Amino acid sequence: MRLAIDAMGTDKGPMTIIKGVKKFLEQDGADSTVIVVGDEVQLNKGLKEFGLSGNGRVEVVHASQVVEMDDKIGALREKKDSSIAKTVSLIKEGKADGFVALGNTMAAVASARLGLGHLKGIHRAGIAVPMPSKCGACVTIDMGANINVKPKHLYTYGVMASAYSELVLGVENPKVGLLNVGEEEVKGNDVVKEAFGLLKDAPINFIGNVEGGDIFTGTCDVVVCDGFVGNVVLKASEGVARQFSGILKSEIKKNFFRKLGAWLSKGAFEGLKKHSNYDQYGGAPLLGVDGVCIIGHGRSNSRAVMNALRVAGESISKGLNKHISDTIGSVAEELREVAVK
Amino acid sequence: MRLAIDAMGTDKGPMTIIKGVKKFLEQDGADSTVIVVGDEVQLNKGLKEFGLSGNGRVEVVHASQVVEMDDKIGALREKKDSSIAKTVSLIKEGKADGFVALGNTMAAVASARLGLGHLKGIHRAGIAVPMPSKCGACVTIDMGANINVKPKHLYTYGVMASAYSELVLGVENPKVGLLNVGEEEVKGNDVVKEAFGLLKDAPINFIGNVEGGDIFTGTCDVVVCDGFVGNVVLKASEGVARQFSGILKSEIKKNFFRKLGAWLSKGAFEGLKKHSNYDQYGGAPLLGVDGVCIIGHGRSNSRAVMNALRVAGESISKGLNKHISDTIGSVAEELREVAVK
Repeated sequence: MRLAIDAMGTDKGPMTIIKGVKKFLEQDGADSTVIVVGDEVQLNKGLKEFGLSGNGRVEVVHASQVVEMDDKIGALREKKDSSIAKTVSLIKEGKADGFVALGNTMAAVASARLGLGHLKGIHRAGIAVPMPSKCGACVTIDMGANINVKPKHLYTYGVMASAYSELVLGVENPKVGLLNVGEEEVKGNDVVKEAFGLLKDAPINFIGNVEGGDIFTGTCDVVVCDGFVGNVVLKASEGVARQFSGILKSEIKKNFFRKLGAWLSKGAFEGLKKHSNYDQYGGAPLLGVDGVCIIGHGRSNSRAVMNALRVAGESISKGLNKHISDTIGSVAEELREVAVK
Repeated sequence: MRLAIDAMGTDKGPMTIIKGVKKFLEQDGADSTVIVVGDEVQLNKGLKEFGLSGNGRVEVVHASQVVEMDDKIGALREKKDSSIAKTVSLIKEGKADGFVALGNTMAAVASARLGLGHLKGIHRAGIAVPMPSKCGACVTIDMGANINVKPKHLYTYGVMASAYSELVLGVENPKVGLLNVGEEEVKGNDVVKEAFGLLKDAPINFIGNVEGGDIFTGTCDVVVCDGFVGNVVLKASEGVARQFSGILKSEIKKNFFRKLGAWLSKGAFEGLKKHSNYDQYGGAPLLGVDGVCIIGHGRSNSRAVMNALRVAGESISKGLNKHISDTIGSVAEELREVAVK
């Protein structure tokens, strides 16, 4: 596999990216190569430091600019030589098969859309975040790529995320739920109601409407929603988890016995952390663009970087996009009818 | 204060309600009276058991039917003599000043709307849930009363919940945020963008757009959103919290040292539970109906029942609805202009 990664613009700096690349190459059995994109002085220095220079598996492509985490979307136009733009170009030019971007999510989404276009039959690419659920990961799509969507977009989200869950996360016949305010078919706004009707006939294992809590209970493997709801739910969930552990920490610090107790039971806290750790999934695929794109968190550590590269590689080797195109192609006519309505 | 409470249809049965009524009367300094509505045989037996018979402060009103937790909304039409319908009638007939309903939320909302109507200038009543935040409670409105809303409805949500936060929860000059996918004014769907413009000029302390995580961080005291988003966020947040404590419990049970540790630090867990406890707020007001209505959880314990009655009493004594009407009245003309657009 030939992968590319934007090495700039994250909280932890390019050295963490290079460390992650090293970890990835060490565990990779497919003789993959990685192009790291960004400031060549820093990156070459890093490769040397991590013993990756001249091994024929890592290459540096220079980019003189960086779209920072808090840059607005307009920065893409102003920074023509940004590392994210350069990374996407590598896919476009056929020099890499898939890429990983960490940092400014919306810049990655916009670059991928504009640079790669959409798969045939897909009109909206969606960010699919694997959320930690009771039975592994619940792939929740869309986490904010599109605020205004039509029923047919929710339909394609379901098809794409089901394919990701099955091919890349290894879930057999993934259960797909539509996020709503109740289980009955008549619930929800007009968009969701119409999407229910479409998903019912989709070539996936659609289990009907699910509620907010079902993301975490293991009720389903995929949850479909629009990008407004998905973004709010993702951030609220992170907020609750942070609040929960913050309060627990400050309560534990209140006296000696509590501290001693927490020390004795620290394995339990580590177990909890492992359960709710996003690192193992590496990042969220942007599903629907004509190319493989994995978007990671701007605070990703090297393990998350390694796993983001791993899932990018698996998305390519398992033929994820071909599977999506074939599935959508097989139902395209019905979807076209819907679109005309 | 003359309060009414629907004593039927909860998970824990009418005895928990009566226990809560007793607790409320014991701490109430305002010589309030409470009408408990439901099956008179069970309720009279309960009042006797708790020593509340014949004290002149509790009265039973009989209702032969119950809208159960999992009944559909149509049950309201079929069960004309339901305890929730009877409870609302007491307000309508002027026999009580406010009421508490626990159990089937949508039945309570529909009964209150149909039975009491809306305050002048309000077209959508919203459920305002006090969510446990870093700095107390963040009143999040609407948690599911209305799925399809217009910008003017979000505007009135902000005004109403700000009044509740200030008058009943005692927050000085509450900070009101609009739930969105980013802080910038240009973010979000059309409804939210237009609501931003309205809220900017509202006679409240509007701080702009907030994100999902801000509900819990103490950034603001009120968060405004539509009922679809609110419902999903509420249930997702409950799901995360349940998942978090479930994993921690099972991790602790894995060996002796962890169990011992957890026992030593159990004060910390109790502290955490207290922080994230909804009981202290008793329930969520349905803001915008012409009467005071507090909706509690179907799993409420007697402490939650006591607090629901307490906040119902405070909403009345602090003149919450008059305050809302006056504020909305003062801006009615601008709102009318918006509504015509």
